[in-house]
Amino acid sequence: MTIDVSTRPAAAVSNRLGIADCDIHHSPRDFKMLYPYLEQRWREHLDLFGQRPRQGNASGPQYPKSQPDASRRDAWPPCGGRPGSDLDFMRSHHLDANNIELGVLAMIRPHPGGLQNLDLSAALCRAINDWQVAEWTAPEPRLKASIVVPYEDAAASAAEIDRWAGHPDMVQVLFLSRTVEPLGNRRYWPIYEAACRAGIPVGIHAFGNGGQPTSSTGWHSHYIEDMIGHSQSCQSMVSSMVLEGIFARFPELRVVLIEAGFGWLPPLAWRLDRTWSRLRAETPHLTRLPSEYIRDHIWLTTQPMEEPDPAEHLRHTMEWIGMDRLLFATDYPHWDYDDPQAALKIRLSAAEREAFFIGNARSLYMPQTASASVTAAGVA
Amino acid sequence: MTIDVSTRPAAAVSNRLGIADCDIHHSPRDFKMLYPYLEQRWREHLDLFGQRPRQGNASGPQYPKSQPDASRRDAWPPCGGRPGSDLDFMRSHHLDANNIELGVLAMIRPHPGGLQNLDLSAALCRAINDWQVAEWTAPEPRLKASIVVPYEDAAASAAEIDRWAGHPDMVQVLFLSRTVEPLGNRRYWPIYEAACRAGIPVGIHAFGNGGQPTSSTGWHSHYIEDMIGHSQSCQSMVSSMVLEGIFARFPELRVVLIEAGFGWLPPLAWRLDRTWSRLRAETPHLTRLPSEYIRDHIWLTTQPMEEPDPAEHLRHTMEWIGMDRLLFATDYPHWDYDDPQAALKIRLSAAEREAFFIGNARSLYMPQTASASVTAAGVA
Repeated sequence: MTIDVSTRPAAAVSNRLGIADCDIHHSPRDFKMLYPYLEQRWREHLDLFGQRPRQGNASGPQYPKSQPDASRRDAWPPCGGRPGSDLDFMRSHHLDANNIELGVLAMIRPHPGGLQNLDLSAALCRAINDWQVAEWTAPEPRLKASIVVPYEDAAASAAEIDRWAGHPDMVQVLFLSRTVEPLGNRRYWPIYEAACRAGIPVGIHAFGNGGQPTSSTGWHSHYIEDMIGHSQSCQSMVSSMVLEGIFARFPELRVVLIEAGFGWLPPLAWRLDRTWSRLRAETPHLTRLPSEYIRDHIWLTTQPMEEPDPAEHLRHTMEWIGMDRLLFATDYPHWDYDDPQAALKIRLSAAEREAFFIGNARSLYMPQTASASVTAAGVA
Repeated sequence: MTIDVSTRPAAAVSNRLGIADCDIHHSPRDFKMLYPYLEQRWREHLDLFGQRPRQGNASGPQYPKSQPDASRRDAWPPCGGRPGSDLDFMRSHHLDANNIELGVLAMIRPHPGGLQNLDLSAALCRAINDWQVAEWTAPEPRLKASIVVPYEDAAASAAEIDRWAGHPDMVQVLFLSRTVEPLGNRRYWPIYEAACRAGIPVGIHAFGNGGQPTSSTGWHSHYIEDMIGHSQSCQSMVSSMVLEGIFARFPELRVVLIEAGFGWLPPLAWRLDRTWSRLRAETPHLTRLPSEYIRDHIWLTTQPMEEPDPAEHLRHTMEWIGMDRLLFATDYPHWDYDDPQAALKIRLSAAEREAFFIGNARSLYMPQTASASVTAAGVA
């Protein structure tokens, strides 16, 4: 029994168009590489107790065993270590080979935001943030990092965001989508407030572990249902954020949905608009249609790329969402990686391609350099 | 504070095209009207203990209080009783006024399939089925009924389906979507097997009460999130049914999703196809793409009608699902009723309109009369 994924070779030729990859996963070669960034107290704690992720949801470890570390077979660094753990190898295997001009790192394994011990969660987030700036973004200017936060403790998260505010290498806040409560709930508002204060978007990567079953009818049987189910989880997350009025309360807030898919967004917005137009009395804190908040405040990374049949439906979906709202991503080095050479099955104009592959990402994450980069990218 | 719904008058003129309404809700005027159909034991039980719906999910009672009984204000029978409880009034107010040639009754309040006491659940289902044939479909040939089943007890459900097999007034099995476990799980398979034996489809109406939170991140704050959330619940239900191999195991099975919306189905199928094509080893019982099972086995009622902006996206969605797979429904007498005169915002050809408003329903529910009805309907 095999999983049907190819072990693609690194692209032989560079893309002419420089690319922004808005979902690259790095990790420490060994978890203990984070120890120099942790206080003695937490090193001892981890040695004694381990991390203790939230109970009741095993989605984390369910990646296909035939693809160790959920990764492409060719992504294991020749000098040892896990995929995504060797900067030099990532440079040659991915950044150089695919002409990645801007790579946004998303630390999800581990993302300690879902740990039950909130103090440990905060300590590990601080350590990871220090580590990724020292060992990833400082030596490699093409890479930018995301501030991991202990998202079940909003005050500690806000403090960590404040600690990094203004740092040029930290381009977004990062947490996971399957939280203890719906992400519109007020317990999370200080995180949004801090992100606005720092002037950076909040990236929410699919996955995580809030302790609830994966569906509103309990647990499913298959790993594939886990994969599919994240898009439903992200739909209720977007509903919650819109209907709790996050975007009305924090008009500067920008949210990036990472690895959530995007085909589901238009039909969700249709349903939100129709239902809200009849039930708006329940949410008087909203002054605009749900779809208007969505279009103004939400960006989406493209991996896993939607593959409609007929392919033309992809264009309809992208146009509804907005050609300026989609951020290309590969999910390197994971097994379900989207190859920039093959991911997009429809034809875009040169300007749309530029926006899709790099322009939108620069505008969002690097606004100070966005206008310069369009010229530098040499779009035909 | 008011809810923004109009109290539409009955249509002044009949539609030229006869209509099938595949989601009409009837109910007993008083719950005790079911008592003649119940054994003494259960009458005493109900008087002592009540129904005891499953704990932990209050979605049932959360309908807007400003619309009592979740109904149109003009749907209360002048002679008293709840909306949907007076056959004579339903005839004049809905069937005659809207030229309904075929009305499929869906008993959901109460649908006793989610009660914790499984014996009571089965007894009440039997009583409701006897009552609706005696008091609704026998006196009114335009109406057909759905066999309510105690769906958390599959053996009892199968027995109830077998009891009605071949009865011309019972055109589908009916249960609710928010079950104790995902509906693809094998505990529910005897229900599907019995439906195939009886040669009738399984209708699954959104809502219900399985005891789980409404999202995979717990409970939301607003009623509107309950309304929106049912579409996510139905997505995981369809994933479960497809991936557990229901349609591979029961090739005659036809499923009707009622009041679930339908705009979400194409993007769900895209994601299922893409993911399954890479992970098919986990579900070797599937021999075809998920989307192929969906297109062959799933029908959807249209209320709540999708209202995309731009409206042309509705046509793309309907074409993907199949113009032969959508069943018009009003949800009469509920407050969010879709008026047949106004529900469809795009132009269809005469043949498409005939299929949408009545032909598809006749083919599915009344196959023996379907070919005759097309002529009788007098489509231009």
